[in-house]
Amino acid sequence: MASQEIEALTQALARLPGLGPRSARRAVLHLMKKRETALTPLLRALERVSERLSVCSVCGNVDTSDPCGICADERRDGRLLCVVEEVSDLWALDRARLFPGRFHVLGGRLSALEGVRPEDLSIDKLVSRIAAGGIDEVVLAMNATLEGQTTAHYLAERLETFPVRLTQLAHGLPVGGELDYLDEGTLAQALRARRPVA
Amino acid sequence: MASQEIEALTQALARLPGLGPRSARRAVLHLMKKRETALTPLLRALERVSERLSVCSVCGNVDTSDPCGICADERRDGRLLCVVEEVSDLWALDRARLFPGRFHVLGGRLSALEGVRPEDLSIDKLVSRIAAGGIDEVVLAMNATLEGQTTAHYLAERLETFPVRLTQLAHGLPVGGELDYLDEGTLAQALRARRPVA
Repeated sequence: MASQEIEALTQALARLPGLGPRSARRAVLHLMKKRETALTPLLRALERVSERLSVCSVCGNVDTSDPCGICADERRDGRLLCVVEEVSDLWALDRARLFPGRFHVLGGRLSALEGVRPEDLSIDKLVSRIAAGGIDEVVLAMNATLEGQTTAHYLAERLETFPVRLTQLAHGLPVGGELDYLDEGTLAQALRARRPVA
Repeated sequence: MASQEIEALTQALARLPGLGPRSARRAVLHLMKKRETALTPLLRALERVSERLSVCSVCGNVDTSDPCGICADERRDGRLLCVVEEVSDLWALDRARLFPGRFHVLGGRLSALEGVRPEDLSIDKLVSRIAAGGIDEVVLAMNATLEGQTTAHYLAERLETFPVRLTQLAHGLPVGGELDYLDEGTLAQALRARRPVA
């Protein structure tokens, strides 16, 4: 029915998280009917992000500049470092604007099942950042999953020789919960009640 | 937190039907993390659709060619014409590949409440198409709403002088529908239109 071009656009949209084939079709129709107010702005925004997209060489965040906006922000407290599994976790925490420090993205979590080892994550880089000094506290903000907590324990061991305070998010996260899905109130509570690694 | 470019992209995506601010953010993150497999294909597909987008001057469908793929398709039965309210209805009917004829999009429905009058819809064009001859049957495939049915009645009156068969979609139980969950209107229609067991 639809032309090849429309079919291609539908498929590209259907691959986005949260959209399926049916909602992608509705979105395409919306874009085609509202060319000036929907299609063109989306196209321009995509072009601009595509041109400037980069991974931050300091923390691993994805942004349109390198170093990213957070690492480049002088008002951030460089003595505070929050370690997260994924960029989505960084965004979730930063969205709530509760954490005044900087971040470090591991790029995943240790997993025997999926064969993810320490050398597969951005851990050496994290150790280098901490070894370089100037950091007082490292918040291990892993997900409250088995693998997230395993990763936190591993990091706590790797980092125990450094003169930094290691903390973790307060329990109050629901078991099995992932940061990106939590409401900001829960995130705020967890961050405020963070405590030293036992 | 996010750069201006990322914010703009998030907002453009959040305006699509079926996506809100939160899912748009997840989609942006997905696009940025999967540049080659997600961002670039979406960008290319949007560009191509944007370049060729047009409204069919015959039937009102949106497509990447004019006349649209359906109007240009020689294998379609030109004697059958299906009149729908919106382009989305055309797509829904055509997706099922059940209707072998061509379409006509009114661009809305008559509505006293919203001030939509006959001259606001593509009705004169429809009358011209039918007056030009070659059409045997006109299916009035309006929505089963008060306004849809009002529109169908109006069209039936406008078209009664033409030598065409006017039909409408059957009303009744949807496939898989359970009596207990159906509204009384549907049940009444299904009962009124009951037919002998084959």
